Amino acid sequence: MLPISHINIIMEKTSYDLIIIGAGPGGYEAAKIAADRGLSTALISKTKIGGRATFGSLLPSKIWLHAADHIRQLKAASKHLIKLDQFNLDLEGLKQSITDKSSRYSNQLTENLKQINVAIFNGTGILKDKHTVLLKREGEEDRTLEATNIIIASGSNPRFTPDIKPNKDRILAPKLAPLLPKIPDTMLIIGGGVTGMEYAYAFAELGTKITVLHNKRHILSAMDSEVADYLEKIFQDKYDMAFNKGIKVKKVVQEGHKVLATLESGEVFSADYAFIAIGRVPDRSFYDEASLEMNWLDNGALKVNSYGHTGMGNIHAVGDITGIPMMANKAILQAKIAVRHILKDVDYPERYHFISATYCYPPMAQIESTKKDGHCDIITKPYSKLLRAQINGETEGILKLKVDPDTDLIKGVCGLGPNIHEILAIVQIAMEHNIPYDELITTHFANPSFTELVSMEIPEIKE
Amino acid sequence: MLPISHINIIMEKTSYDLIIIGAGPGGYEAAKIAADRGLSTALISKTKIGGRATFGSLLPSKIWLHAADHIRQLKAASKHLIKLDQFNLDLEGLKQSITDKSSRYSNQLTENLKQINVAIFNGTGILKDKHTVLLKREGEEDRTLEATNIIIASGSNPRFTPDIKPNKDRILAPKLAPLLPKIPDTMLIIGGGVTGMEYAYAFAELGTKITVLHNKRHILSAMDSEVADYLEKIFQDKYDMAFNKGIKVKKVVQEGHKVLATLESGEVFSADYAFIAIGRVPDRSFYDEASLEMNWLDNGALKVNSYGHTGMGNIHAVGDITGIPMMANKAILQAKIAVRHILKDVDYPERYHFISATYCYPPMAQIESTKKDGHCDIITKPYSKLLRAQINGETEGILKLKVDPDTDLIKGVCGLGPNIHEILAIVQIAMEHNIPYDELITTHFANPSFTELVSMEIPEIKE
Repeated sequence: MLPISHINIIMEKTSYDLIIIGAGPGGYEAAKIAADRGLSTALISKTKIGGRATFGSLLPSKIWLHAADHIRQLKAASKHLIKLDQFNLDLEGLKQSITDKSSRYSNQLTENLKQINVAIFNGTGILKDKHTVLLKREGEEDRTLEATNIIIASGSNPRFTPDIKPNKDRILAPKLAPLLPKIPDTMLIIGGGVTGMEYAYAFAELGTKITVLHNKRHILSAMDSEVADYLEKIFQDKYDMAFNKGIKVKKVVQEGHKVLATLESGEVFSADYAFIAIGRVPDRSFYDEASLEMNWLDNGALKVNSYGHTGMGNIHAVGDITGIPMMANKAILQAKIAVRHILKDVDYPERYHFISATYCYPPMAQIESTKKDGHCDIITKPYSKLLRAQINGETEGILKLKVDPDTDLIKGVCGLGPNIHEILAIVQIAMEHNIPYDELITTHFANPSFTELVSMEIPEIKE
Repeated sequence: MLPISHINIIMEKTSYDLIIIGAGPGGYEAAKIAADRGLSTALISKTKIGGRATFGSLLPSKIWLHAADHIRQLKAASKHLIKLDQFNLDLEGLKQSITDKSSRYSNQLTENLKQINVAIFNGTGILKDKHTVLLKREGEEDRTLEATNIIIASGSNPRFTPDIKPNKDRILAPKLAPLLPKIPDTMLIIGGGVTGMEYAYAFAELGTKITVLHNKRHILSAMDSEVADYLEKIFQDKYDMAFNKGIKVKKVVQEGHKVLATLESGEVFSADYAFIAIGRVPDRSFYDEASLEMNWLDNGALKVNSYGHTGMGNIHAVGDITGIPMMANKAILQAKIAVRHILKDVDYPERYHFISATYCYPPMAQIESTKKDGHCDIITKPYSKLLRAQINGETEGILKLKVDPDTDLIKGVCGLGPNIHEILAIVQIAMEHNIPYDELITTHFANPSFTELVSMEIPEIKE
């Protein structure tokens, strides 16, 4: 009788309708839909199913944020609704929660794929030509897999430099946050983008004094700068948080129980810990320059059209490998569209907006630009007027819409406040389907709810 | 010099472009938009601005629910993320919160209206003819006001009967809940509709043993019965809650420190308190039968068309006075449409869906019917598969969509679970604007978020 591993190998086909490289949110979604629609599908992944998003970045960060949200709500409730004695973060419980939830989610995704007969290969896939992928697995011989179609969903890795990189002790990064033995008293956050602001909020809420070092003039610089400034002000009012912007960090070193960040100007910042969140870079480990030419963008990402097509007959790419914004929801959408494109299912219109989002509190999100252009109206609506905001005691926040007065169509939206992601989903549908602003606001959203921010008519402050 | 009250009378005009009777969510919205668009507007209200929704029903109920939500979240957080000692509801803080937030919201609405010069009259408005309203105010002489247009937004009152009515001691109703000296040990909830389920949840979460007495076969009988049964099961699993359905309560009496509810069958239920939530009836106090004929429906509501038009040239009606469903968001929408109709602004399409919602936890909502009809597909999506649900530890819930396979249009939706109101807002827009299901699900909603329930493609269970 053969050992089980040999049986697996015998069962593995070598030719598929579709091979997907990478099993993060984009790769998983593509495999799920393709197999469900009848394509014989193989998924090659260096990690467990769910990818770095599940084990290193997205999911763990949301557990930290969820814990911070709990602490924040406790503080709010204790002001008038709940009598309680002292409360503290259960740091070990949080770490266990990250491990448990990552595993459980990954196992569920794996199970889903197995049910629809996706062949899962744990290893590295190297593109050899338009139909051939070399599968490299630790302790096993390389194998060659063939496919009619290929989707690259290799994802991204955190951006580190030789002088700005984690040391697994007091210089950390998102994936390494569970190494913390306790919530630090002081922390440098290197990078004021979406990830930096999420961890800045989480640690500030958990009691850490935060110093943000950011190379742009505004935090969250891809988004509306007025709204970003509003978030910064909320942070400054509420927490022990200092912002140093428009500066460049040269190096981060640990000296004993302290970390030191030296700027190009020579200025030095010091704290108990440093946390590096200076962006992500596409993972090109699937690429063998000698075998194949591909169309690369300057930032190291693969060039694709709105169907995720790489310009090479049978190869699509989805997710972070296609460049900024590197967001899971973009990857998932690209995966859906790419599979439909492969299946010649529906001819989908161009749908990629610029989109960005951060899950700090209050959360902030943006679709397209909300910059004044001398033509469009800018309509701002404050959360403070909402009944739901008043009931919850969450009145900080704003929704900013850019509307073309000729067509009444929404051209851009930025928001900061509770449930802003759900609110922007509503606006997003209106933008994608050319629903005029006045028709959108004559919709009877639930009352009292945060979604009423969309339909709230007055007082609007028209600039 | 004249006393101030006389100055006020002198300043009050007697003729307006628009008179609105009632200052609840519908009346307030109508006044706000009409005045903003240049109509001279008078608002007559028996209550402070905000109406019974703000002081008696909607707002207070949401404070109770908010407190219950806090307790629920505390229990959840204490399982793995937060270390805390004991916690209890601050009942006096909650009562104060209701008073404070109702007043603050009402004051804000009043201020908003004053800023745009709405004339506010505290009193009862009686319709004398198509252009004349008699204003009755306590301690003042009746006055006659004239208007080109009239909007009736008189709202509704709780439905009580001689044998089923609150006694301000141990037989209570939503408005009277603050009379409770402590959270009761046991309570009868008379009525299994949206209000009954909200208070059943709130008190159950706060520690009360609940007995629901309901005259229909399913709770929340206007909504999908399968989903309603799912909610009932969640309640039964989680709380000390008993459901008695398909029965008719004959009378509710207090005997000493107990209340007794006697069914028509003779069966008697007993508890420390009873809470009556058997619906609402339109408030017809504006109506003087001798002066004017109007088109009434059998249930006592005013008949209106999709513009809120009563069929009498210049009179519109919005909100609860127009009948079921009696929901604030319907009132607000009707108000927006009615004012636009008066202004001959835009010719809006028919937009009233059947819609219902309850804010218990998990919350439940419905738009149109999700009943099988032998033609449409029924697509169900479980919350348990969502990453956001797993992160939050809130995996109970379901979204049920009815899709026409010929057109791919969504015909109805019902949902139970966290953020269901926001999720249904997204589906609602798709329904109102004929966005096909497959286009809706190829939208990149935020990840991880509850809104992904809409776009989640597989596993869908197609029945």
